[in-house]
Amino acid sequence: MEGWRQRLRGWRHVTKLDPDRPLEDRRLEAVLASGTDAVVLGGTLGITAEKVRSLLARVAGRGLPVAIEISCPDSLVLGADLYLVPVVLNAGDPYWTVGAHQQAIKQLGGWPAAAWQLVVPEGYVVLNPDSAVAELTRALCPLAAADVVAYASCAAGLFGMPVVYLESSGRYGDPSVVAEVASALDGGARVVYGGGIDRPERAAAMAAVADTVVVGNFVYEGDPVMLADLVDAVRLTPPPRGAEG
Amino acid sequence: MEGWRQRLRGWRHVTKLDPDRPLEDRRLEAVLASGTDAVVLGGTLGITAEKVRSLLARVAGRGLPVAIEISCPDSLVLGADLYLVPVVLNAGDPYWTVGAHQQAIKQLGGWPAAAWQLVVPEGYVVLNPDSAVAELTRALCPLAAADVVAYASCAAGLFGMPVVYLESSGRYGDPSVVAEVASALDGGARVVYGGGIDRPERAAAMAAVADTVVVGNFVYEGDPVMLADLVDAVRLTPPPRGAEG
Repeated sequence: MEGWRQRLRGWRHVTKLDPDRPLEDRRLEAVLASGTDAVVLGGTLGITAEKVRSLLARVAGRGLPVAIEISCPDSLVLGADLYLVPVVLNAGDPYWTVGAHQQAIKQLGGWPAAAWQLVVPEGYVVLNPDSAVAELTRALCPLAAADVVAYASCAAGLFGMPVVYLESSGRYGDPSVVAEVASALDGGARVVYGGGIDRPERAAAMAAVADTVVVGNFVYEGDPVMLADLVDAVRLTPPPRGAEG
Repeated sequence: MEGWRQRLRGWRHVTKLDPDRPLEDRRLEAVLASGTDAVVLGGTLGITAEKVRSLLARVAGRGLPVAIEISCPDSLVLGADLYLVPVVLNAGDPYWTVGAHQQAIKQLGGWPAAAWQLVVPEGYVVLNPDSAVAELTRALCPLAAADVVAYASCAAGLFGMPVVYLESSGRYGDPSVVAEVASALDGGARVVYGGGIDRPERAAAMAAVADTVVVGNFVYEGDPVMLADLVDAVRLTPPPRGAEG
């Protein structure tokens, strides 16, 4: 039952769609035709089950794996291939590290052991203090590189989390910090980077140091024709640790 | 490299010694002769590396496995068989869920992957609001049984932690809550109970619903002759889920 691990390993480029943001059909079609490896539905504010369901209906069955990032209980909608649970490691409010998940589990009541096989915890490190997620979780940031590495090691080594997500939503981050994390984890967890990927050079720079590069805002704000260029830039870049990624 | 998992499985009765509390030789000898399965060095306040080292020197090599519970960076002393890291799931201060571990990892610097094999995260649920650990971590408690179960499910299911520790330090808890947790986890994680085990009836009642029963204060405050009676009471009680425990 390690299916999701295998699948995640193949994800070099992921597109994140926000259920709370209107998405024109032409932009969605450009995403689906871009060559991206997977679509993740996730956002920070204004998420409702109805919005998640509506977006899921538009992307499911279109040939790409679809994951839902469960940022609040309402986003737990059936029908996705995978469920990603962001565990915000540097949250200043413990609700976003454990409490939210504990409450969701309580609401769900009995949860069969098999269902956990579809659930992947992501050790989130929030990097951009000006982002909505930083404000919501009262994230302890900005962080020195050594702190980011230590959070990542904590997630991978101590908690055994399969994914460390470096979240720089809205602001392009520092590839050298991502490289330090990848080097410290040495394949022990998948390193995902998201934030400010709006041109091929940036996509390539992060693809060289992260296992997975996430494109989000650009889907809504950029030129849809360029979405495939971002994917190509990622694909043409050798992953960290060579062939393994 | 799953050695520690196998070893933990055999621990039905554990004795917890506090490096900050003076321990008479006759009491220590009674512990070592009691039949307990393992000794854990751990406490909440006043822990220094010197105190941990001193206590470790007295119990190491006496025929029992010795684990150190890393409640602060100072307790990370070499020479134990195993290192348990309490992740306080219902901490009101996020430092005690992630921050303390992140800081410890940062202090240690590079930490070889193999070293993690000796480290076992414990999902702690603090049950007694009047305990020192509740005050220190600003624990969100008391908790309804459904909340305790949901925290435990979060630790075992979402975080994949091998141990859920129901900590009722200083006050005997409710065996029916422990039973609910064991039933919900169904062997997915080892359920450890500690708190107020000061007579054989209580030891037996908790041994019937928890995989591991921890005796702590009684070592310091009780009649040393009775320590073996507590062990016997645990041993004579069939573990939850029958032979597996």
